[in-house]
Amino acid sequence: MNLKQLSSMLGLSQTTVSRALNGYPEVNEETRRRVADAARRHGYRPNPSARRLATGKAGMIGYVMPTGASVDIDPHFVEFLSGLGDYARSHELDLVLSPAEADDEETTYRRVAAAKNVDAVYVSVPVPNDPRIALLHQLGLPFIVHGRSEGLDFAYPYIDIDNEGAFHEAGRLLVQLGHRRIALINGDERQTFAIFRERGARRALAGGGLELAPSMIRSVQMTEENGYLSARSLLEGEQAPTAILCSSLIMALGVSRALREAGLSVPDDVSLIAHDDVFPWLKPENFPVPLSTTRSSIRAAGARIAERLAARISGLEDGSRGEVWPVDLVVRGSVAGVPP
Amino acid sequence: MNLKQLSSMLGLSQTTVSRALNGYPEVNEETRRRVADAARRHGYRPNPSARRLATGKAGMIGYVMPTGASVDIDPHFVEFLSGLGDYARSHELDLVLSPAEADDEETTYRRVAAAKNVDAVYVSVPVPNDPRIALLHQLGLPFIVHGRSEGLDFAYPYIDIDNEGAFHEAGRLLVQLGHRRIALINGDERQTFAIFRERGARRALAGGGLELAPSMIRSVQMTEENGYLSARSLLEGEQAPTAILCSSLIMALGVSRALREAGLSVPDDVSLIAHDDVFPWLKPENFPVPLSTTRSSIRAAGARIAERLAARISGLEDGSRGEVWPVDLVVRGSVAGVPP
Repeated sequence: MNLKQLSSMLGLSQTTVSRALNGYPEVNEETRRRVADAARRHGYRPNPSARRLATGKAGMIGYVMPTGASVDIDPHFVEFLSGLGDYARSHELDLVLSPAEADDEETTYRRVAAAKNVDAVYVSVPVPNDPRIALLHQLGLPFIVHGRSEGLDFAYPYIDIDNEGAFHEAGRLLVQLGHRRIALINGDERQTFAIFRERGARRALAGGGLELAPSMIRSVQMTEENGYLSARSLLEGEQAPTAILCSSLIMALGVSRALREAGLSVPDDVSLIAHDDVFPWLKPENFPVPLSTTRSSIRAAGARIAERLAARISGLEDGSRGEVWPVDLVVRGSVAGVPP
Repeated sequence: MNLKQLSSMLGLSQTTVSRALNGYPEVNEETRRRVADAARRHGYRPNPSARRLATGKAGMIGYVMPTGASVDIDPHFVEFLSGLGDYARSHELDLVLSPAEADDEETTYRRVAAAKNVDAVYVSVPVPNDPRIALLHQLGLPFIVHGRSEGLDFAYPYIDIDNEGAFHEAGRLLVQLGHRRIALINGDERQTFAIFRERGARRALAGGGLELAPSMIRSVQMTEENGYLSARSLLEGEQAPTAILCSSLIMALGVSRALREAGLSVPDDVSLIAHDDVFPWLKPENFPVPLSTTRSSIRAAGARIAERLAARISGLEDGSRGEVWPVDLVVRGSVAGVPP
């Protein structure tokens, strides 16, 4: 059954049927339900070209992907994609990845906006005063940010997790357990998520009358090796930490290796808390000593980004609502009181 | 400068200039160079819509992505994407990910072919008699397979690594070191790469007069946890292995954990070799005991897939050439002679 047959069976125009199936708000609820029921009953699957014709939409969402020999995409991207793809499938949306020079994403955003291949885009890993967000705002291409920027003089739609709150909670627990030498192994300090995590940790330490000294902070690309090297350099310092906050599970693998090599045990010598994006292939409860985490599913974030993009495309959402998700602090065996 | 201005400056038609810039074979080498030089000198960047008009191509390659609540995309996908994206960028190709029901990718392939949004697609993780390859062959949509199928009665273009050869080499080394109880912790045994690896291991053991018994094989989704559980069940068996071949680095993390828990050391009690796709975020040389691997960069494979897709789109490649890459066996500390 095609759109024409379905429409004539229902006594509706093809435009109305197409809009009903794509969630446009101008179709009333009763009609929407009648169309959806008939489509299901007769096994009708919308044809994208027909949809495009009827709705003026491409049925595609876009992502400008930084690339280059020296650019390593973080593995959490697959989990984000799983969530985004799962939602997008149920709404017959495709995702267009447009590869860009890592230091010149703007050119690619302009190309994407001009080509009109996509109805909306999302932006990931924002920085303060993010020029990509400013450009999209100016170009008028619908978008949502995964994460937040700072310092822009306009509001924009985003979803983010409470990175500051998460690292504040984690830091506060360590302070309450008596730790005074607490270190932070963070991601790239130019990126907002890392800035917020440092802010949270700093505020937690301040709450106990402590300072987060520059010598106790590392800002690195989040690999196992960098976790190891960061932990080793911290342990070799004069004020070796008794507790470490770490921005990723993969880095925590390296931190664990450095501690083992140094003959230190978790949590007797060093307490460890890491951020967990919830990967199916690496679980914190399976660390040699079950790892305490700040936990937020990046897969759920991917699904939510797709959901809100779909809503923006079909006119069900507009404006610039920001959405901040709370983060769980999950305490497992890797945390204990300060060693005597 | 736009296409029209560039063309009139060169005294060429817009079609010729566009085809020259997109590598079409009907443009001679001298013209191609002259156009490329002028474009570079005047900072001309092709506009995708103009290109589409001139060449009849969308400038997009497609991938049908299995999704669903129970589908976990393997993290090696990000490395593959990094390579593919890096090459695609230099040729101004975008990648369209079309999410599909994991158990019904064919419907999505039909939709993608009908929508004509993409010029070519690639297929990943093939199985024997892969219905997706048969469908694409029938639909006439240009494609390349990453990996190989078996049992199809037509030839098709692919690139693959020599999975059988890799696990044969690795297995042979273990046999030569005197191991007789060798186990295989493999990926999903329905997929060709896993079938080929098992075949290679089996052939290596046969070379030493040994059999790879079903009780010495595990076929699982490649997570840390499954590596751990597989190794634990092998070690609890009557014929505990003295050597383990493992299909992924992430599973090898779990195998290492199981060995440590059982009080066994690598390589004195158990030798370990794993396949390494070359991740920047987890390196085999950084395992507690540096891990021996069969190594092949999946990032390079992604770049090569993009290169051959671009060549097929512009008519520089046709036919059904298969390309099989040799795999390095990298011996590090995790391998030793059989324990006395």
